[in-house]
Amino acid sequence: MIAVYSVARPLLQRRFMQIRQLFDRDSSTYTYLLWDERTMDALVIDPVLEQVDRDLELVAELGLTLRYVLDTHVHADHVTASGVLRERTGAKVIASERGAACADQKVGAGDEIRVGHAVVKVLETPGHTDDSISFYVDGSVFTGDALLVRGNGRTDFQNGDAATLYDSLTRVLFALPDDTRVWPGHDYRGHTVSSIGEEKRRNRRIAGRSRAEFIEIMNGLGLPRPKLIDVAVPRNLVCGREPVAA
Amino acid sequence: MIAVYSVARPLLQRRFMQIRQLFDRDSSTYTYLLWDERTMDALVIDPVLEQVDRDLELVAELGLTLRYVLDTHVHADHVTASGVLRERTGAKVIASERGAACADQKVGAGDEIRVGHAVVKVLETPGHTDDSISFYVDGSVFTGDALLVRGNGRTDFQNGDAATLYDSLTRVLFALPDDTRVWPGHDYRGHTVSSIGEEKRRNRRIAGRSRAEFIEIMNGLGLPRPKLIDVAVPRNLVCGREPVAA
Repeated sequence: MIAVYSVARPLLQRRFMQIRQLFDRDSSTYTYLLWDERTMDALVIDPVLEQVDRDLELVAELGLTLRYVLDTHVHADHVTASGVLRERTGAKVIASERGAACADQKVGAGDEIRVGHAVVKVLETPGHTDDSISFYVDGSVFTGDALLVRGNGRTDFQNGDAATLYDSLTRVLFALPDDTRVWPGHDYRGHTVSSIGEEKRRNRRIAGRSRAEFIEIMNGLGLPRPKLIDVAVPRNLVCGREPVAA
Repeated sequence: MIAVYSVARPLLQRRFMQIRQLFDRDSSTYTYLLWDERTMDALVIDPVLEQVDRDLELVAELGLTLRYVLDTHVHADHVTASGVLRERTGAKVIASERGAACADQKVGAGDEIRVGHAVVKVLETPGHTDDSISFYVDGSVFTGDALLVRGNGRTDFQNGDAATLYDSLTRVLFALPDDTRVWPGHDYRGHTVSSIGEEKRRNRRIAGRSRAEFIEIMNGLGLPRPKLIDVAVPRNLVCGREPVAA
């Protein structure tokens, strides 16, 4: 189901939600630490296992209490730190209803995650994978691999589907206000952020293209199988821990 | 000369200055594209030669007019794109009074650079090099290699001086409001931004340390000579172009 949200925002607004973008060079993954500066409650989006010490150090230095760990989807290119963060902080792991079984809480379209006084809205944005979700808060959207800067995630594994992704991009994400900041799950060219208006007009894969054209492009990419997929997916289904042999 | 600025900012404020952070993976350099969204006039800080096509593409896609190219100092670890950007856009190159001779305009403490309706203030922050300057605009400071996230630039070449850097950090940059966003010239651990308050409290090299301790640390680092210094410095003195043989 595709849901469309209206998220009006006053012209003059003090933003209390702080956003800290973090980069993992090996997997080109962006992790986001968000906190409400009024209460110092925090959540992290798409943490990378190898960066868990860096991220916990930052949480401690900022005096934050980590409440939630969110994954935008079951990743195929890196192992999530969600399980380790849960163990080391007591934070709850949140994933899509179709995501990792190890999550403490499953969310879907329209669900809200409260962090301090801030409300993070869950948007269903499947297509890269069938469990892909995005998170909207305070004029920013965290799109995982659904929408990247001038691009989008591939659709050829983990029940990915180009038609579904087209609908997620055009009907869900592009329904957000043009000045919404887009924080991607990866970038490979040194871009860090974009906006919905910019991606509507300039995204290489989708701007000015029909659904049929987009599907043809995505189904014709012929990309190699991700190097880490056979390690990452099984581990991410158990929050990044070592899977137990059957 | 060390100058201290007071930059008061209203609690409720619509920011018209847009900031786009860009990363060069090879040199771990951050480049910044800033523009006034009311007029679409832009400037770029610390552009990297190898990224000039990416950066000009972004300028075009956003519909910006590039007015100025600023370097925070004569870099030793990458070649500036300032000369190429000047040739390809007509933008003016701005550097410190003690910086690259090729600049169209030399600036020092308290000078202002107007971009659209926005005013960028020049802060003198020498110590990493003797020509290091920082730029303040709209609640953000671009610190080059003077102040990094939890660190600072080395002080052992290009007339660097630890005592001078200590004064730049503590008397100039730390005089800015605590919530000023700090946008560094590099990061090697995946950090992207910090704040003055955070660095005052948490910077590894300077928080809680005396001037004498800081000098001792900096003078004892024993770092290897930068790999690119003999290429980068001569080229950066001529805005990144091939130096003419004497």
